[in-house]
Amino acid sequence: MNILMKSIRNFVSARDWGQFHSPKNLSMALTKECAELMEIFQWKTTDESESEKLSDVDMFRIKEEVGDIIIYLMMICDRLEIDPIQEGIKKIPNNARKYPISQSIGNSRK
Amino acid sequence: MNILMKSIRNFVSARDWGQFHSPKNLSMALTKECAELMEIFQWKTTDESESEKLSDVDMFRIKEEVGDIIIYLMMICDRLEIDPIQEGIKKIPNNARKYPISQSIGNSRK
Amino acid sequence: MNILMKSIRNFVSARDWGQFHSPKNLSMALTKECAELMEIFQWKTTDESESEKLSDVDMFRIKEEVGDIIIYLMMICDRLEIDPIQEGIKKIPNNARKYPISQSIGNSRK
Amino acid sequence: MNILMKSIRNFVSARDWGQFHSPKNLSMALTKECAELMEIFQWKTTDESESEKLSDVDMFRIKEEVGDIIIYLMMICDRLEIDPIQEGIKKIPNNARKYPISQSIGNSRK
Repeated sequence: MNILMKSIRNFVSARDWGQFHSPKNLSMALTKECAELMEIFQWKTTDESESEKLSDVDMFRIKEEVGDIIIYLMMICDRLEIDPIQEGIKKIPNNARKYPISQSIGNSRK
Repeated sequence: MNILMKSIRNFVSARDWGQFHSPKNLSMALTKECAELMEIFQWKTTDESESEKLSDVDMFRIKEEVGDIIIYLMMICDRLEIDPIQEGIKKIPNNARKYPISQSIGNSRK
Repeated sequence: MNILMKSIRNFVSARDWGQFHSPKNLSMALTKECAELMEIFQWKTTDESESEKLSDVDMFRIKEEVGDIIIYLMMICDRLEIDPIQEGIKKIPNNARKYPISQSIGNSRK
Repeated sequence: MNILMKSIRNFVSARDWGQFHSPKNLSMALTKECAELMEIFQWKTTDESESEKLSDVDMFRIKEEVGDIIIYLMMICDRLEIDPIQEGIKKIPNNARKYPISQSIGNSRK
């Protein structure tokens, strides 16, 4: 994670792109990349989106999109001094309270 | 990252939610969470989206969304056996080739 | 459509909100509303997303999101002097060329 | 609007694509198209996203995306028997109640 973060910073500063990387703009880019990942699954059934049904070409594209997503997510977190892993860990107990096991088991939520 | 991954797996299996978590469905949830992050910045200027201009309430919401985003991203990666950090690291040299410094410096890309 | 456009303009000008409604910001709001529509279908199967399987509550929410989506789309079109219906009509022959019937019939595209 | 709807139906039935067009899948495609529209504005300032600053190439791309967006929106509405214009008109008084003029004037909302 530190290696990735350093590579991103070098890449951005070498191109003087920090000026474009407001959290607002980065959140747009992040959403766009997630939509591109989603597009890969768009006309597939949920079954066809599982790893054993995906072609090598699909897996290659998915990995590329995941790479872009983590890069933009880390840029946002770097800019706003947020640790995404910590925030993920903090969210789990909240979600556990929101969806108690007894009421949630086997139910698609909401 | 391992702690987070374990917590997610426990959370999901305790609720028997794996059945809903096809990559297709998770990619929808991930995109939705990114759109919620983006919504926080929607009516702000790019300047107002920088950390020194954000209120505590905004920062709290941003952290919550970042937590949700990393959780869904890791669920997808777990399901498809992808290492997001590795994919991010692999993407940097590709992006460097796509956007050579000499042509990209100070230009908003594309 | 004209009635809707007039109502939107009155609503926006009464609140002096035109200043926030750059095409950039509106495109963020539009994407957010579409993600909210998508969220309704997120954990459903494709079958469960069909009208005969949707609850009245789901249909009510879907209609609300569709209302928001058309409002933001028309705001963007008004701001940029685009006629969305004309653009839709123009796209059909392009799409027909891109996806010739003989090669596309019954294939999920791409 | 009727012309557009008829063209869409012919296009889809000639390719036997109705089978892929569940509301769930269409909502993904719609969100993806909105994200592509948004991408055009991603690195621009809000000012640069206004019509007088956009290049002909940008305007061409925007119109193409708007065409795709209205097509997918109408496909969803056709499948679920929703009239988007009516839903837009119904939403305005709700929004007016939610954002009273006296409290909303000149404030970026929320």
